[in-house]
Amino acid sequence: MSKIRIGIAQINPIVGDITTNKNKIIDIYNDAETNNSDILVFPELSLTGYPPEDLLLKPEFIKENINALNDIVNNSKDTVGIVGFADYDGVDIYNSAAVFQNKKIIYIYHKIYLPNYGVFDENRYFKPGKEYSVFTYNNIKIGVNICEDIWYPNGPGYHQSLTGNAQIIINMSSSPYEVEKENIREKMLSTRAGDYGVYLVYSNLTGGQDELVFDGNSMVFAPSGELVTELPAFEENLSFVDINVGEVFRKRLHDPKGRKNINNSENIQIKEYTATIKEHQKNYIKLSSDNNYKKPVDPLELPYKALVTGVGDYVRKNGFNKVLIGLSGGIDSSLTAAIAVDALGSENVVGISMPSRFTSSGTKSDAEKLANNLGIEFYEIPIENTFNTILNELTPFFKDKPWDITEENMQARIRGLILMSFSNKFNYMVLTTGNKSELSMGYCTIYGDMVGGFNVLKDVLKTKVFQLSEFVNKFHKKEIIPVSIIKRPPSAELRENQKDEDSLPKYEILDEILKLYVEKDKSFQEIIEYGFDKDVVIRIIKTVDRNEYKRRQGAPGIKITTRAFGKDRRMPITNKFID
Amino acid sequence: MSKIRIGIAQINPIVGDITTNKNKIIDIYNDAETNNSDILVFPELSLTGYPPEDLLLKPEFIKENINALNDIVNNSKDTVGIVGFADYDGVDIYNSAAVFQNKKIIYIYHKIYLPNYGVFDENRYFKPGKEYSVFTYNNIKIGVNICEDIWYPNGPGYHQSLTGNAQIIINMSSSPYEVEKENIREKMLSTRAGDYGVYLVYSNLTGGQDELVFDGNSMVFAPSGELVTELPAFEENLSFVDINVGEVFRKRLHDPKGRKNINNSENIQIKEYTATIKEHQKNYIKLSSDNNYKKPVDPLELPYKALVTGVGDYVRKNGFNKVLIGLSGGIDSSLTAAIAVDALGSENVVGISMPSRFTSSGTKSDAEKLANNLGIEFYEIPIENTFNTILNELTPFFKDKPWDITEENMQARIRGLILMSFSNKFNYMVLTTGNKSELSMGYCTIYGDMVGGFNVLKDVLKTKVFQLSEFVNKFHKKEIIPVSIIKRPPSAELRENQKDEDSLPKYEILDEILKLYVEKDKSFQEIIEYGFDKDVVIRIIKTVDRNEYKRRQGAPGIKITTRAFGKDRRMPITNKFID
Repeated sequence: MSKIRIGIAQINPIVGDITTNKNKIIDIYNDAETNNSDILVFPELSLTGYPPEDLLLKPEFIKENINALNDIVNNSKDTVGIVGFADYDGVDIYNSAAVFQNKKIIYIYHKIYLPNYGVFDENRYFKPGKEYSVFTYNNIKIGVNICEDIWYPNGPGYHQSLTGNAQIIINMSSSPYEVEKENIREKMLSTRAGDYGVYLVYSNLTGGQDELVFDGNSMVFAPSGELVTELPAFEENLSFVDINVGEVFRKRLHDPKGRKNINNSENIQIKEYTATIKEHQKNYIKLSSDNNYKKPVDPLELPYKALVTGVGDYVRKNGFNKVLIGLSGGIDSSLTAAIAVDALGSENVVGISMPSRFTSSGTKSDAEKLANNLGIEFYEIPIENTFNTILNELTPFFKDKPWDITEENMQARIRGLILMSFSNKFNYMVLTTGNKSELSMGYCTIYGDMVGGFNVLKDVLKTKVFQLSEFVNKFHKKEIIPVSIIKRPPSAELRENQKDEDSLPKYEILDEILKLYVEKDKSFQEIIEYGFDKDVVIRIIKTVDRNEYKRRQGAPGIKITTRAFGKDRRMPITNKFID
Repeated sequence: MSKIRIGIAQINPIVGDITTNKNKIIDIYNDAETNNSDILVFPELSLTGYPPEDLLLKPEFIKENINALNDIVNNSKDTVGIVGFADYDGVDIYNSAAVFQNKKIIYIYHKIYLPNYGVFDENRYFKPGKEYSVFTYNNIKIGVNICEDIWYPNGPGYHQSLTGNAQIIINMSSSPYEVEKENIREKMLSTRAGDYGVYLVYSNLTGGQDELVFDGNSMVFAPSGELVTELPAFEENLSFVDINVGEVFRKRLHDPKGRKNINNSENIQIKEYTATIKEHQKNYIKLSSDNNYKKPVDPLELPYKALVTGVGDYVRKNGFNKVLIGLSGGIDSSLTAAIAVDALGSENVVGISMPSRFTSSGTKSDAEKLANNLGIEFYEIPIENTFNTILNELTPFFKDKPWDITEENMQARIRGLILMSFSNKFNYMVLTTGNKSELSMGYCTIYGDMVGGFNVLKDVLKTKVFQLSEFVNKFHKKEIIPVSIIKRPPSAELRENQKDEDSLPKYEILDEILKLYVEKDKSFQEIIEYGFDKDVVIRIIKTVDRNEYKRRQGAPGIKITTRAFGKDRRMPITNKFID
């Protein structure tokens, strides 16, 4: 009687490819219809891909997405579909959910809370919605809202449940992955289900889009706050869950907090809509959830999968097959290559080692060993002749100035030139291998080792590079990244006996300070209160600020922390502030 | 009796350098006090510099700017100072104007309309103000508002004038320059003065900050809409204007539209404040405006000055003295060098010519001639030996693949390497010389000719490069850029007999289509309706979209059009939409 089957379509759309996204949505809809799903929910803006950025300012883009929605609606049968798209009212556009059935739109919900912080710019595009709505299906009341809406304790879900008497809240999201966000998100959603006394269905996007990666991991919660089922992380998935909303009434009788809550929604009007009951309900067969996914135990598994998904989608969605990596025998390029192989297959990864007079025999043989372990195509191209030629050409102009960073950068830039020549000749995308610690400190050569179309480790601190490298070997249950690479003290090998620690604080200290300064935006005073050396902290802060110009010309890369370089952290280049 | 002297302090602050900005504000305040100014108004957020971007998310930054404001207030005497700063109410921050006198803040105005489009992200930081206010000085009522506020016909100025009876509206702005914006802005301000029946004082920022350049050109309008006086463009300036507000009463009696306007501000409360009359008013002497600036007649003068200001401020504010430019003998590098010399002086510009086997004797000698005309340091470093060495090293790996873009890019990248080596050795900032047409089409080599810290012509289409080059010679009344450079058909000279028009449509056509597609965001269908060839248009649109990745790694450069690449136009790299 008060049972309902809800399908969650956790998809990986392509930004701007509205036709492909539409066809995917229709195929999945037809599948859900066949599976007797009463309702089928897609993620936020799944028809356009997320985030569409300034494509949303193109009238043709808005029109095409509305036409595609109409095609989806015209294909619909009994199952109630809920699809994210950009609605247009003749003046403004809205981040919207269309609720439809039997070739008709029942109603359209407009997102009320628009995020405009971190990587989000939704105020740039959308007008916030004003209508709080629920719809009825088989005597069950359901409230639909979108992403940010559910992050506000007294947001739409609150009013839909406690004023509109919704028994089920459906939230469609495109919520980007960050390390450990899955826990924060699960706690929050569980709390909302309990506070509102509802079943909460959370449908999230999956896949990579430029610097963002979406983890999917859609979830369903009971009114007790208990997690009923969850969908896999970083995979497309269609799952069904059967809900008996009788539990909502019981919970509300046993736990009067929702009813006793001082209701701040007295003036809120709830608009009510009705959907037709699906025929199959007459012969309802229990299915329950068909999904056995559990979140991984190893805290490195999700970040690793985020990197694999991010680079794989960036390369594929931009029409490339193969990637090229400069293998130095160091840990950053080794981890980048291992991730690339997991993302694209060993047949699509090419490694080039480019030794110089400063390359030790250990790193040189390690580069080759890594390539063998990964089973990738591998070339060795020494840079010595080119380096000598350019030195001969330029030293007359340098007069009596001593060897310095100039000659170090030259080597990195010759390597960049070689990689880009292969990229041009064979249409490989170069992956650049710098990590977040290096990029923070500008310990990298612009137009040298920073060369490349995508930077896999852009948001990964060096200490985490070590952890992830060990994880790779554990995950594959064999030595992929040679232990000698993991054990060797990091060196750029651009001069005799160079070590990273000659120029940088120890990574254990550097990374802790970078976490505080970059990711938590703590001030100098606050950081030294953690007990760090004053001079070290001031040096790091100044160096991070001064190198904004270098990062601004760096390759895009995958955000996995609370604050990545890029549109997440919009610092001026010209900036004299010292925190 | 109802006369008042208003000072406009059109300053060029440095983002984040709150102490320097504060000292500048205090010095000018003291000057205005000496000049018996009743009121002195600075531009929007002039204490922090504009735009401070994510510095606004740092608590220490907000605290430091409030402390600096207190210092300014504590220095104040009879003159009413109006300074832009970021206010904090314990929860939110506001884009604000402090109105102060005799060591006390009279009141603080919070900007009501926050721009969040184009290059602006103010919703990311600020809460909008709610209070409409006027203050009285010598029986004259004055309304203060901030930048975007005045762009709304029924914004704060409307209510301050027609409900609050303000006779003078003061708008403090940080309004970035765009070609011909000065005319749009002047028309709008003139219309507002007439609609509101007030004297309108507009105080705008000047100087460059990263990709933005502010033109100053502050103005004062009479209630008739007539321009009373204007301050110079692209210069710091302190000017005084004496206003007799008797004219306001006359205008309002003669023109009843303001009074008859159906008043949509009935529920608007106007908060009233009072300032003390300055002693010198007792011996008031007529000064009127001391300024004779007139907008330039030549439409190229302001864009040229914008480029000069933009590069000069970027280089100086980032602590560099000298710049380095690769001089090809082509028009882009020639114009860049001429602008750099006007911005920094010939003693601070260094040119390097890097000929190859494909460099014609004409371009080679033109590069030298240009350097002589500019009186700059000049070197010639052929790339032939290095090019041959790298070809020998790589061709074995390229097997039987023919010469292609790879070998062309190699030459550009060797030149980039040479420029960066000089940059490292002598601490010169490299200026990259690409123009907007090239960057649109990706007709430039990433890590090659795109190398550099700043891109002067980033937002200048090729046809405008020609116009500005002719302007340079006219402006200096002698041949700076050799006519042979202006006349020669553009070529990258990366292969035998190469011309730009082998790869690109004629610039006259290309630039018109780029204006429509990039600057006006027209769709394919709309563009062909202008009569352009369908195949040419589709090729250009696809090429622009596909090269987003290249621009993303390009150097920052000066926005001078309505839509520049960068934060003004936020397109995804991964993007399958075809307009």
